Order: sequence, then C-alpha cells, then structure tokens
Amino acid sequence: MAVQSVATTPPAVNLGPAAALSCRECGERFRLGPIFACELCFGPLEVAYDLPVGDPEALRKQIEAGPDSIWRYAPLLPVPADVADKPNLNPGFTKLVKADHLAAELGITGGLFVKDDSGNPTHSFKDRVVAIAVEAARAFGFTTLSCSSTGNLAGAVGAAAARAGFKSCVFIPHDLEQGKVVMAAVYGGELVGIEGNYDDVNRFCSELIGDPLGEGWGFVNVNLRPYYGEGSKTLAYEICEQLGWRLPDQIVIPVASGSQLTKIDKGLRELIELGLVEDRPYKIFGAQAEGCSPVSQAFKAGHDVVRPQKPDTIAKSLAIGNPADGPYVLDIARRTGGAVEDVTDEQIVDAIKLLARTEGIFTETAGGVTLGVTKKLVEAGVIDPSLTTVVVNTGDGLKTLDAVAPTTGMSAVIRPDLDSFREAGLA
Amino acid sequence: MAVQSVATTPPAVNLGPAAALSCRECGERFRLGPIFACELCFGPLEVAYDLPVGDPEALRKQIEAGPDSIWRYAPLLPVPADVADKPNLNPGFTKLVKADHLAAELGITGGLFVKDDSGNPTHSFKDRVVAIAVEAARAFGFTTLSCSSTGNLAGAVGAAAARAGFKSCVFIPHDLEQGKVVMAAVYGGELVGIEGNYDDVNRFCSELIGDPLGEGWGFVNVNLRPYYGEGSKTLAYEICEQLGWRLPDQIVIPVASGSQLTKIDKGLRELIELGLVEDRPYKIFGAQAEGCSPVSQAFKAGHDVVRPQKPDTIAKSLAIGNPADGPYVLDIARRTGGAVEDVTDEQIVDAIKLLARTEGIFTETAGGVTLGVTKKLVEAGVIDPSLTTVVVNTGDGLKTLDAVAPTTGMSAVIRPDLDSFREAGLA
Repeated sequence: MAVQSVATTPPAVNLGPAAALSCRECGERFRLGPIFACELCFGPLEVAYDLPVGDPEALRKQIEAGPDSIWRYAPLLPVPADVADKPNLNPGFTKLVKADHLAAELGITGGLFVKDDSGNPTHSFKDRVVAIAVEAARAFGFTTLSCSSTGNLAGAVGAAAARAGFKSCVFIPHDLEQGKVVMAAVYGGELVGIEGNYDDVNRFCSELIGDPLGEGWGFVNVNLRPYYGEGSKTLAYEICEQLGWRLPDQIVIPVASGSQLTKIDKGLRELIELGLVEDRPYKIFGAQAEGCSPVSQAFKAGHDVVRPQKPDTIAKSLAIGNPADGPYVLDIARRTGGAVEDVTDEQIVDAIKLLARTEGIFTETAGGVTLGVTKKLVEAGVIDPSLTTVVVNTGDGLKTLDAVAPTTGMSAVIRPDLDSFREAGLA
Repeated sequence: MAVQSVATTPPAVNLGPAAALSCRECGERFRLGPIFACELCFGPLEVAYDLPVGDPEALRKQIEAGPDSIWRYAPLLPVPADVADKPNLNPGFTKLVKADHLAAELGITGGLFVKDDSGNPTHSFKDRVVAIAVEAARAFGFTTLSCSSTGNLAGAVGAAAARAGFKSCVFIPHDLEQGKVVMAAVYGGELVGIEGNYDDVNRFCSELIGDPLGEGWGFVNVNLRPYYGEGSKTLAYEICEQLGWRLPDQIVIPVASGSQLTKIDKGLRELIELGLVEDRPYKIFGAQAEGCSPVSQAFKAGHDVVRPQKPDTIAKSLAIGNPADGPYVLDIARRTGGAVEDVTDEQIVDAIKLLARTEGIFTETAGGVTLGVTKKLVEAGVIDPSLTTVVVNTGDGLKTLDAVAPTTGMSAVIRPDLDSFREAGLA
C-alpha cells in the first residue's frame, strides 16, 4: 500500500480535525490512510490534529450542546463534523459515579469517582474505540470490518458493523468459551475460529491485510489502529467535563496493551492545551494483574524496557504479555508522579465484590484489577487519599461471571415457612 | 398494619406530587403507606397525584434541564423533589434508537424506534421500578429491601440496595441457574433459596410481611408495589420527549404481569393531561410468548377474563401464568385500537437475531417476544407500517445467552493460513 510523506499537503479524506498521521518515535508525518507503522523507523503512528485552539469558551459551549455520546467531542476526534447523523452505536458519555461508600471503605476523603463504561452499548469501553474506527473505515471506503479478538472486541465490532451497515468478519481463537462465541456471533457477521492461540490469530490477520482476499477490509486494531486508539481519549474528556471541567488529581487505569492509558493522558494534555481545564498536576496510575504484569514489574524494577511475560490470570482481557505501549505507560507514570502496580487473582475477585457491595456496580475482571490496585496503592500511601481520585471501570461483570462464581452464591436454602427462615438466622 | 381513609388529609410522608393511594376498582383513597390492596374491595392500589398542571412550557423546561435519568421527571413521580441528590443508581434516559435497517426489513416506512432499556445500570427496565421503590422505602423508614424474584429483579434490588445504603434480602426458587444466582448474589446482600417454585416464594414473602421477622422490610413488588409500578411511566415520558415531545402512533410492549403496559398508558395520558404532548390517538400493542399467552388468548377470543396458564416458554421473564393486570391490558389494547399477540419460541429466537443483525442491539428473550410480535402484526396488517412505531426492549441478551446459543456460533474453523481461509469461502 502506497503512502506519502506530507509536510503540508491537506488530507485527502475528511476526518475532521485530523491532519495527518505522525510517528510517535521519529515524528515523520504521513497522509491520513489505513496505515499503522512508520515507513522510516517502524514506530507506531498516531493521529496529529489541527485542534480548535483560541476560544475555549465557545468550544466548551459547543461540546455541552452536543449529543450525549462521544460525538459531543467530534471537534477533537478524527471524525467528520456530521458524524452523529450517521448510523452508529453512539457510545460514551457514561456515568461518572461518585462512590462515597467505596471511598469510606478505602479511607479516601478527597472524593472518589468510578467512570463506569459498563454503560456502553455492548458494555465495555471497546465501543468507544470501535466507533472511531468505523468512521475511518467509512472515510477509506472499506466495506468489511474485521479484528482479531479474544472476546469483548469481537462483540463490539459485530454490533458496530451491523448498526453502521458494514459486513463484518472477526477472527478468534477456535477454543474460546461458548458464551463469548455467542456474544460475538449473534450480530450475524462472519465469526471465524483460528486453530491456534491469539498470537496465531494476529499473525493471520497481518497476512490477510497484505493479500487481495483482505481488500476493502478495515481491521480495527491493525490497519485502523491509529484511529481506533483515539477513542480512548474520550474517557479523559468525559471525566473532566463531568467533574465540572476540572482535571482529576489521580486516575487509575487498567493496562493491557497500554493504549488506553496513553490515550487518556493524551486527552488530558489536549484539554489543557485547549484551555478547557486549568493546567495543574495530575498523576496517572496503571493497573495490571500479577499473572500478567510486565509493565508493573518494569516500573517497580526501575527499568525502561518491558520484558514479555506468558500470561496466567483470570483477567483475560488484560492478558497481553508483550504490551506494545508498555514503555509509554512507564514514561507517563514516571512523568506524572504516578505508579504501575499489580494484584493477585484473589485480590481481583475481592475488588469486584467490594465495588458491587458498596456501589451496586458489577464489574468485569479488568475492573477488579483497577480497583484492587487502587486499594493497594492507597494502603501503601502511594495514592493520596486526600485528593480527587477516578477509577476507570472498563467493562461489565456479566461477561466474566466465572471469576466470581466459585465464591458467590446463596446465603441459605430454606423451606417456604417462617420457622425455617428464623432458623437460618438472617433477619 | 393500620391504614386510614383520607379524603383530604395531607400525606404524612414527602413523596413529591403523590397525594394518596387510590383503589383501581372502587376508587377509595388511602394515606400513602406500605399497602397494596384496597381494604374495602381488595382491588389493587395505585398512586394518585397532584400533578403540576397549568404551565406546560415551564414544566417542559424544568424537565429538559434535569438530570439524564428518570429523575428529570421527578415532578411526575412519587419521589421527593431532591431525589437526585440521594445515592441511587440513576436509571433511565436510555437511548431511543432510530432503527432504519430493521424498518426496511419489516417494511415499516413511518419511522421505527427501539427504546433500549438494556442501557440501564443492571441492564433491564427493572432498575426504573426498583429506584422508585427505594425512595418509598426511605420515606417509610424501611432499612431492608426485599423481593421475590426469578432473576432480573433480584440483581436490580441487590444493586440498588447496595448503592442506596440499605440491607437487602432477596428470595428466589432454590433451583435457579447458577449464572442468575451469581448476578443476584454478587452485590453482597442475603440471597435465600426457597425449596419450591416461584408461587411458593411469593406465598412465603406474603407471610413474612405480616410477621415481626419482616418488620422494617420493604418488598419492592409486594408492599411497595404501588410505588414500584410507577417507575414504568418513565418509559412513556422518555419516549415522547425523545420523539420531540410527541406521542408515538403505535407502541409495542411485552406483557408479563401487564403492569408495564398499563403504566406506560398511564404515563402517556398524563403527558396529554399536562399539555406536554398534543392529544392525538395512539395504539398500544401487547406482546406475549405463545408458551405463556393468557392475555393474548383472551384478546383474540374476545374475552374480558384472563384464564390462567401453566407457562412453558424460553421467555422466562414473561412467564407469569396468572397476570394481575391482564384485564387492564385487554381494556387498553381495545380502547386504543391496539391488539395483544403472541409468538413461538422459534420466532422469539429469530427476532433476537434480527435485531442484533440489523441494529447491533442484543436483546433478551422478552425483547425477542416484543419484536417478534411487531413483525407478526405488521405482516398481518394490524400494525400500520406508515405510522411511527416504538418497540420497547426491556433487557439484555447477555442474561439469556442460552436462548440463542444452540443456533449461534462460528461460521468456520480454519488453520491460520490464507489457503485455509480461501477454502472456507467467506471473503
């Protein structure tokens, strides 16, 4: 596929304020297109913008008058201005829940909030990133949406494709649990099992992109990845707007590839640059499961390099042993005065139950990781309990029931009479 | 428990515009309290209001400036004016999705919308009714929330109690599927299995209400039922507001006890009375599963009386064989020129897949019933395809995966190479 270096050439497609792709390593700029690696240094590409600087008050009003979805931030995203008029799942603008009961249990006095992305259309933050990829796919004239996935993403792509009027063909490891297969297949696109593990699925998708068979296909997490990743910026925008256009002091984010954390940081910096929030320090904390903790191990050892691991954790949606954005996560945690930490599977389950019991929010294992790490870092004195803290909940407990099932059940089984209930000693 | 007939006495508790309870059969009025049946004729009680008539423009502005939840309609609900400041799950204001792909498949040209209540906190409309019951429980000084349930409601009550700071104790049949037990138990309240079926659970709860053991307990669907039911009115309010303060021409609603349908009708009539929408005809359609179709059988036979059935359908959340509000549903369907119809389990599954494939919305079996009936009534010429039609989706497909699992799976399993993919013939 041909790409052109563009210093000043205007982009050929209309993706709103997106001006070009730029290499995160060497800074070289490329015309907007379905490419993801720098031709010169093979570094990852990201979207560079012409942002609407100059009149923060007008921009804030425009955003506040926008739809109750990520499209209220269209002026800051690689999407056309009329994006909200096209059929899509309209994800985002999920609840920022003030979690006073949880704060009391953790000893946080400065205000604790849960950004609850289980409220998205397919109940995970993936709807945000996929929605942006869909608009890129439209702009590039793709007709099929695709991805490699181990679960959540497959459903998000299937649903988004159905709604937006794309064909879809999604690739998963052939031995995925039946529940996840059903969630991904129900939207009616093609769902293809690959004999092999997730790495094999990824390798196959890369081959397919270079082959005529894959022509007209947008792989949301491969050739559309630079656009896709930008969807996570909206978490930063929403958190600040919902706090009253204010930066949180501390924010805790799960780390799989590390993309979400780096994009939330990018979003916060953009809001400062645009004058939408006051420029003051914030700390970013990364959360991993002990059974897949390459970034937290590197952080704690003081390394700049992330050593790959073979994942073994119940937090399967975070089980990326060789995270592409790991080094950037280390940079951000160190630059902002944050940290990266990990918790055991048992602590993950405890944290899932803690959130459910205190706030009525049932999170998936990734959310258990994030809250578990929050608790651990408060206890260690690393997170300051007197400051405003936001915990990002990326998904829904209904998708990872197995994690809590062994330790969650009925208090008692009784006969249908009052004596039997009295004997159970529950009233 | 003592109740007093109140003609003009002001209520002793602050539940906003709620003035009294009135008997739906004989009209006798009672002071607001945790009672549910008329002392004189044993008819069901419902909330009577002093509604803010007189200045529709001011009311509309007040609503539009309110929170993105059912609390924007606090002036029309039995809740105190400051309800949004109390800890609760803030359900409602879910998406009204314009379903153009689905409309095209069904041949509907007048505009088809899906009111998607899977976006609620625990992913079903039950969060609406439970949230109202919680406020009644606060007003009456209850400290424990309870209910009898076969699934969805147990989780909604557990979550709401956790968030609102109540204890909870929920009763279910002892042989419920493990997934449903986990969803209900994870919020940390007591979950008690009763040796018996759902009728036995209900009988036990009624006994408990009259016993000192149950003192201080609010059973959302028993002694708080008159308040609880009012939560469904918010579906009517939201649909009209989201249509631009306009009544839909036709609305299709699932029928279990029939409460939701009757309360949506009540909500529509209130909006007319308040001058918030133009007074014009609307038709209400009820949807049942063939395997539990007492109301649709009565409708089609021209009967006023609903003959109880023994349920046998995959739509378990609608499987109420002796629906309390069945006769009212018949009245409303006939008065508005609507109908009540039923579909087979196979048609339910087909409809679930149709909605997922066309709009990217994965609904539970109850939603399959509603859409299946919509399709059947369009094909029969009963629903007019040239009119605006709203289909109510009450819940989420993640909770009834078993219904679609047998017929939903991978298109193919291949080796991780292009030849193998080519042979599968999917590209």
